[in-house]
Amino acid sequence: MKVQNLIYGAAYYDEYMPYDRIEKDMELMVRAGMNTIRIAESTWSTLEPQEGVFDFTHLRRMLDAAKKYGLNVIIGTPTYAVPTWLVRKCPEVLAITHGGQNLYGPRQNMDITNPVYLHHAEIIIRKLMEYVKDEPHVIGFQLDNETKSYDTCTPYAQSKFVEYIKDKFPNLEDFNHEFGFDYWSNRINTWEDFPDVRATINQSFAAEYRKFQRQLVTDFLTWQSNIVAEYKRPDQFITQNFDFEWHDYSYGLQPEVDQYAASKAVTVAGADIYHPSQEHLSGQEITTCGNIARGIKNENYLILETQCQGNPEWLPYPGQIRLQAYSHLANGANSVMYWHWHSIHNAIESYWKGVLSHDFSEGEAYKECCVIGNEWKRIGDKIKNLRKTNKIAIVANNEALTGLIQFPTATKDAHAYNRVLRWIADSLFEMNIEFDIIPANENLLSNYDCIILPAFYSAKESYLNALDTYVSNGGNLITTFKTAFSDEHLKIYHNTQPHILHKALGLHYDQFTYPENVTVNYKDETSEASEWMEMLLCDSATPLVHYEHHAWDRYTAVAQNHYSKGHTLYLGTMFGKNTLKALLKDFFLLCDINEPDKLSFSATYPVSVKQGINDDGKHILYFLNYSKKIQTITNTSGDAVELISNENVFRNDRITLEPWGVKILEIRV
Amino acid sequence: MKVQNLIYGAAYYDEYMPYDRIEKDMELMVRAGMNTIRIAESTWSTLEPQEGVFDFTHLRRMLDAAKKYGLNVIIGTPTYAVPTWLVRKCPEVLAITHGGQNLYGPRQNMDITNPVYLHHAEIIIRKLMEYVKDEPHVIGFQLDNETKSYDTCTPYAQSKFVEYIKDKFPNLEDFNHEFGFDYWSNRINTWEDFPDVRATINQSFAAEYRKFQRQLVTDFLTWQSNIVAEYKRPDQFITQNFDFEWHDYSYGLQPEVDQYAASKAVTVAGADIYHPSQEHLSGQEITTCGNIARGIKNENYLILETQCQGNPEWLPYPGQIRLQAYSHLANGANSVMYWHWHSIHNAIESYWKGVLSHDFSEGEAYKECCVIGNEWKRIGDKIKNLRKTNKIAIVANNEALTGLIQFPTATKDAHAYNRVLRWIADSLFEMNIEFDIIPANENLLSNYDCIILPAFYSAKESYLNALDTYVSNGGNLITTFKTAFSDEHLKIYHNTQPHILHKALGLHYDQFTYPENVTVNYKDETSEASEWMEMLLCDSATPLVHYEHHAWDRYTAVAQNHYSKGHTLYLGTMFGKNTLKALLKDFFLLCDINEPDKLSFSATYPVSVKQGINDDGKHILYFLNYSKKIQTITNTSGDAVELISNENVFRNDRITLEPWGVKILEIRV
Amino acid sequence: MKVQNLIYGAAYYDEYMPYDRIEKDMELMVRAGMNTIRIAESTWSTLEPQEGVFDFTHLRRMLDAAKKYGLNVIIGTPTYAVPTWLVRKCPEVLAITHGGQNLYGPRQNMDITNPVYLHHAEIIIRKLMEYVKDEPHVIGFQLDNETKSYDTCTPYAQSKFVEYIKDKFPNLEDFNHEFGFDYWSNRINTWEDFPDVRATINQSFAAEYRKFQRQLVTDFLTWQSNIVAEYKRPDQFITQNFDFEWHDYSYGLQPEVDQYAASKAVTVAGADIYHPSQEHLSGQEITTCGNIARGIKNENYLILETQCQGNPEWLPYPGQIRLQAYSHLANGANSVMYWHWHSIHNAIESYWKGVLSHDFSEGEAYKECCVIGNEWKRIGDKIKNLRKTNKIAIVANNEALTGLIQFPTATKDAHAYNRVLRWIADSLFEMNIEFDIIPANENLLSNYDCIILPAFYSAKESYLNALDTYVSNGGNLITTFKTAFSDEHLKIYHNTQPHILHKALGLHYDQFTYPENVTVNYKDETSEASEWMEMLLCDSATPLVHYEHHAWDRYTAVAQNHYSKGHTLYLGTMFGKNTLKALLKDFFLLCDINEPDKLSFSATYPVSVKQGINDDGKHILYFLNYSKKIQTITNTSGDAVELISNENVFRNDRITLEPWGVKILEIRV
Repeated sequence: MKVQNLIYGAAYYDEYMPYDRIEKDMELMVRAGMNTIRIAESTWSTLEPQEGVFDFTHLRRMLDAAKKYGLNVIIGTPTYAVPTWLVRKCPEVLAITHGGQNLYGPRQNMDITNPVYLHHAEIIIRKLMEYVKDEPHVIGFQLDNETKSYDTCTPYAQSKFVEYIKDKFPNLEDFNHEFGFDYWSNRINTWEDFPDVRATINQSFAAEYRKFQRQLVTDFLTWQSNIVAEYKRPDQFITQNFDFEWHDYSYGLQPEVDQYAASKAVTVAGADIYHPSQEHLSGQEITTCGNIARGIKNENYLILETQCQGNPEWLPYPGQIRLQAYSHLANGANSVMYWHWHSIHNAIESYWKGVLSHDFSEGEAYKECCVIGNEWKRIGDKIKNLRKTNKIAIVANNEALTGLIQFPTATKDAHAYNRVLRWIADSLFEMNIEFDIIPANENLLSNYDCIILPAFYSAKESYLNALDTYVSNGGNLITTFKTAFSDEHLKIYHNTQPHILHKALGLHYDQFTYPENVTVNYKDETSEASEWMEMLLCDSATPLVHYEHHAWDRYTAVAQNHYSKGHTLYLGTMFGKNTLKALLKDFFLLCDINEPDKLSFSATYPVSVKQGINDDGKHILYFLNYSKKIQTITNTSGDAVELISNENVFRNDRITLEPWGVKILEIRV
Repeated sequence: MKVQNLIYGAAYYDEYMPYDRIEKDMELMVRAGMNTIRIAESTWSTLEPQEGVFDFTHLRRMLDAAKKYGLNVIIGTPTYAVPTWLVRKCPEVLAITHGGQNLYGPRQNMDITNPVYLHHAEIIIRKLMEYVKDEPHVIGFQLDNETKSYDTCTPYAQSKFVEYIKDKFPNLEDFNHEFGFDYWSNRINTWEDFPDVRATINQSFAAEYRKFQRQLVTDFLTWQSNIVAEYKRPDQFITQNFDFEWHDYSYGLQPEVDQYAASKAVTVAGADIYHPSQEHLSGQEITTCGNIARGIKNENYLILETQCQGNPEWLPYPGQIRLQAYSHLANGANSVMYWHWHSIHNAIESYWKGVLSHDFSEGEAYKECCVIGNEWKRIGDKIKNLRKTNKIAIVANNEALTGLIQFPTATKDAHAYNRVLRWIADSLFEMNIEFDIIPANENLLSNYDCIILPAFYSAKESYLNALDTYVSNGGNLITTFKTAFSDEHLKIYHNTQPHILHKALGLHYDQFTYPENVTVNYKDETSEASEWMEMLLCDSATPLVHYEHHAWDRYTAVAQNHYSKGHTLYLGTMFGKNTLKALLKDFFLLCDINEPDKLSFSATYPVSVKQGINDDGKHILYFLNYSKKIQTITNTSGDAVELISNENVFRNDRITLEPWGVKILEIRV
Repeated sequence: MKVQNLIYGAAYYDEYMPYDRIEKDMELMVRAGMNTIRIAESTWSTLEPQEGVFDFTHLRRMLDAAKKYGLNVIIGTPTYAVPTWLVRKCPEVLAITHGGQNLYGPRQNMDITNPVYLHHAEIIIRKLMEYVKDEPHVIGFQLDNETKSYDTCTPYAQSKFVEYIKDKFPNLEDFNHEFGFDYWSNRINTWEDFPDVRATINQSFAAEYRKFQRQLVTDFLTWQSNIVAEYKRPDQFITQNFDFEWHDYSYGLQPEVDQYAASKAVTVAGADIYHPSQEHLSGQEITTCGNIARGIKNENYLILETQCQGNPEWLPYPGQIRLQAYSHLANGANSVMYWHWHSIHNAIESYWKGVLSHDFSEGEAYKECCVIGNEWKRIGDKIKNLRKTNKIAIVANNEALTGLIQFPTATKDAHAYNRVLRWIADSLFEMNIEFDIIPANENLLSNYDCIILPAFYSAKESYLNALDTYVSNGGNLITTFKTAFSDEHLKIYHNTQPHILHKALGLHYDQFTYPENVTVNYKDETSEASEWMEMLLCDSATPLVHYEHHAWDRYTAVAQNHYSKGHTLYLGTMFGKNTLKALLKDFFLLCDINEPDKLSFSATYPVSVKQGINDDGKHILYFLNYSKKIQTITNTSGDAVELISNENVFRNDRITLEPWGVKILEIRV
């Protein structure tokens, strides 16, 4: 979605205030150059304190104050946190999960399939929409909040699962065969025998339930979207704050939502990105998660939540809040919305601090926001709606991710898939090569010079055939261990591995182990093999790396292949990023994949370079210093103006970046 | 409570004996100089094998044998372990906790609010009291055992909680506002909607339930005390064995009991202190936990349980049992009672060994008890009822402790509060400075030259104002990070931090983080910052220590202030004990707080010095060697007699302490 | 059981195949020299897809194909995995355990005492037996699979436990006294009060329930055996695949089954042995677990399951599958059956790979099986039915094992008993001394020159008296800490420790601790004390090792004694294997226990030597190279023929072993 102006602001909760400060807060926001607040998304019990009793006092106050101070408003539907009265009247609203029966207390504890929940959710959504739809400064709506299925396993949800399976497998025998239920006597011989899914030892079954749960999320958002669409004006957007695999911060692809499917429910993709800070601020999460967000609808996206001060360990060093804000824009975001304006005085997120600390003073964070907001008022038009055209795409896929949870690697955790994805994404980021992250959609392949499939474990034959065709036609494919090993139901393919792709890759294997004391080496970059190792046997492929190990040295670790008009690179194990970067560099040279415009490469990480085309068709070049040291680089692009300082920077000029600093060149054409 | 004679003995269980040894055991006790047994406290099912069927055979045997051998008896009410028949007849007696429904088996598994439990408990208490009250050698009664609420969350207990809240907040809206229930839609709009507290994400709510559970303990002990008081003679005491935060040994303030409130139910405070042994015997637990016990009623206390041999890892080195016994007395205890006489042959505490091992032989532990008991027969009158007058007090507080559980520091465990308390207490101990531990009671402040508040997170305004006045009037205050941050309901104060105290402290802050690679230095004592760090900004205060860190070095870590007639010291982070001791030393000099009598300081830890005034008004000086090496010190006090050896020690004489040895000087006036 | 031919093969599941391969697979097996398949053991839901509906199609296919290809068949009863229809019709079939209510999904999740389960299990067993009993190539039956009680704690099972206790203790008072239920008010004063056992804090009670659960296993197998015996021919065997304490591989004595008692249900002992591979392949598990298996019925045993490729971390180096196969035979096994033929394409064991990988190619593992199978066709008659006569026996005991779970050592896990057993067994193995592992049966003692009791915690007086007599009569006894400490109900003996044995051992103790910074030294082999240390006081014994520690050096760590005609060695703590081996070596010299025939000792570990007598009465000598290096040894035995190569090896010839290689000498007499 293109925006008129960059959106800058914070979530605001009049409901949580210890005393009336609404005018003071709006005044502070305006002073900081902010222009938007996001409200209402967790306040069902305030809006409807008893069934059928509605109280929009806080809403009214916020709408009025925002109007008075010229702030725009995003309205969130309040359905992700249910009121006490609803649970008292219908305890079945609370989900039963793999962990048992939920109790009241946390948000997101309900069964999103429960008809009573849906009934009351619809009432409050409609009441709210009716109330706000005509407010001119309401620019859009957020559906619910970070929606998931919350692992609902209620009998009701499981009965829907039976219908879902019946629909896919009208013949029960096909279901038994595809899922291998003969194993350990797990056959389901009549639909009535369908067992509780929670304790299954059949990974195909477990994974299918996860897929079904993701479908529930899509259905739920679609249902909400349809309701909201009945009310909204054409100029108002619908969004959802998609989030990411959570490692105490945003890490990678969200396992519990098929964001590509769910995106049809929204008119613009929104995202919540939280990330390490202080010495650990690297730009990696903003890049990988931002690229996922940009890929959801393949256009500019909104940052609906990110940290200002955030958790104690994230207290930003001076300059970091500003660096972060520009990093989002450099990646294609059109907004930075903090969660949240003020630090809350009660409950679980009290130490997840906002722009203001608990004392409401104009602290360091607020002061840095003022810098950002006022810079954006000045130069926002030049940097909004940044268009990107990348030649390389990483394919992100929920089924593969689930596959690696169900059949883990040596590090027996649930994070292997995103670890592999991040291994590649972070290496590209450190090489200052921009990339897209896209779904496993055959139609997208031809947009790219190079497709990268990290641990694409669970793969449909049709997609594998499309990849084969893509390479035949001159595409370049990079893929890793644990790719194309099983079909879309985690049934392992029973012929040569990697299934179908072995032809394009020119290699095969039937043995694998966890590496122990195994090293790999490429052009003097030596590192230890980890996670998984496949004993590759090259057919037509050229071995690039062998395993260094007394028993396994007969096998190949990395090989490349020329297949018809295209090239492939296969990584049979995981290893250090420096080794990977050396391999990628040579592979890109071989495939003649131009580093985008060659402009950026006088800068090396920790100076990150991001680029794009602005609304004026001008080339915009960001230099982002992810370090505590001053960095100096040379402008190897053309003559330019540095937008923030409005100073000329001629070709071959030296550019100095403060610690955690940023410069933005607009190239003169 | 003053005693006629030091109480020395053990818990005795005729019920658990594999064969009849009662006469033999009493004879052994007498030979060891013991004079008291504690009986009956866990034997409900033996006393009342079926409902209404009473059998006092074992009790009779023990009372008779004790009388015959001249031993006194402490009777424990048997209510902390319920009999099988009660649970069969009324399964609801078993508590439901945060972890779910309790099963029969462990002690302390019942709902102490359950009326059926209370009904039957009252019956057995009255029967028992009736039976023993006239026995002349019964000197006192112990209520129950290490009483807690055992985390009862039964519907019955939770319904009492609703009443408790109604009582505090007649207006539900006040409750919602103070507890911030608008957050995440947690509002309670009618009393009927009051939800199960167990899964709450509202820390104010969770903490209030913990406070309520502590109130249940006070109520329960008061109820028992009133029953017992109906029977007891004026010469008999009522006690309770208060215990401590448990880290496989007694560590610090007990989180589950408000011992200051509960103390009103007893006539003398008792305590259970268990501690590391062997190389890890330090005197720290005996000091900190003993000081807490002494502060419960601000007088001499009883050690009702401590280890003789104890757990396998506690097997004492030669001399340690004796050192421990004297350490308790040096701290103000009037008794040492071992848990227990004999090592049990079945069940969970079989390896928690007593004075005798399982083979009942006269082993090393028994032999060392003989030394102790016979020394005390000789010198007990000189060392009993030791009076202490300390100038420094540490304030210990359950609400603050709960606050740090609910909002943890970087080490995300439940022990942060006591870790901070112990950091200070252990430093004072190693400086050979004695101190009291007192409740947060305004009236006590003026008794002390210096008040120390470790991590006083949750603080009423009235107490903070009293502290402000205390300093204004010339008092000296030391406090740490995470002090006065929230009110008594864990609602964070919404103005300058630390709330109210910032005036006396002469500083404020609104930023904090977990320290990472941050050091602090004071007078060449450098150490690493840990747990928490606040970015202090000095107003009138003098910075003493800055953070050593590239980004945070602009902020102060430790500052002192002169405020009207008093001084303050604020510790914005945690660090090494040596750095702390250097700071404390200078602060005490600045405040002109005399080290008590200056007598002790020729000795340095691991020689610990403790002192007090005995019943004769004489100054008693203990030297306790907490090390495996011989230690030699100089008597810098006046001419004295060493009580154990009955030898003269003149001023400036050298005193030699054996490994784990002890000497006691009575100063001639 | 003696066999006609070595049994070589794999479990086969036509049910799990993605497509029809049965003829191809049988042809591959025959080519590999395999002769047996094991079928049917987990396929109840395939055999009886609905109650009373039977479908033996797969069975028919496998029986017919096996007959056509000359393969024998072992039939497993399918009762360890219940079908969905049974759970739907009778949810009570699923066990309630210490962890709560089981759900459907895993195998071995049922209550084996449940009458509905037993009723339907009997029906399918009888139908199956009826169907297969007359097939000439069915050579035997396996009862169920790795049978346990699966921790059933259902009300039904617990009611059986009450009966079991009533039977042992008709007088409830005796039960209370022996189990010490007076402690913590746990008395059971009427049978109706018998509480749920799951939360007990009484280890005697908990351990007795474990013993009762083991009895359930014996009862269950006996019940199945009786049914099967009604059908089977005299030439057909009945077996059970006994397994071992599981540490991600087979580690030691199985805690949940009394295999000695259960063995009466079978005509030949079978075992499942899985073990580490690659660099960690040591021969230790094959030896210890194999020795347990051989001892179950004191004769040759069957390996019914072992890994071919197995889990990813077990992928064998070249040569290891063959070394493993010979190692089993060298230990007295008469079969090697892989689990399983093909790698499964769905569900939890998909990565537990078989002879063939998922692609069914003739991979490295298959090729190595071909070598093995064809060697055995050639030389099998010389190496089958190997007879062993060992002079040393280790006593393995479930009650002792349970005792060390209930009262753990310093390493507070459930594995202490087997850790001590393995400490001794692995030391003997590394000394190339073969040994038996036997039950605590008085009648077996006289078969051995030396009896070793590792951590024989829970011991009946009658057995201790028998041991005393054994030593008096010239036997030699080695035992360790934590021996003879409690009776058979975990009631600690209340007199001199070790109970009864202290006379033969010539020492006693009443103190023990966890060692911390304690070393022991014997003949320059110094190592750290661990797990437990007893403060030994020698009466008549000779101290061999003292504790090296400032406080404990007065106590003995290891002592030997001469008692009447025998000798004893007592190990009061655990320490390094090298120190133990030095002690054992000297003790065996002292006792004049000849190393078996002295033949083997030119070889030292990692070359393992195993021996026995074959059907021709010839001495067979195995040399097994458990290392990645070539090893060369000298034949210090007589002139011989190396069976695999059929080459002569004369006395004093050098023998070269490839990495992971094996040679077998048949000594010419």
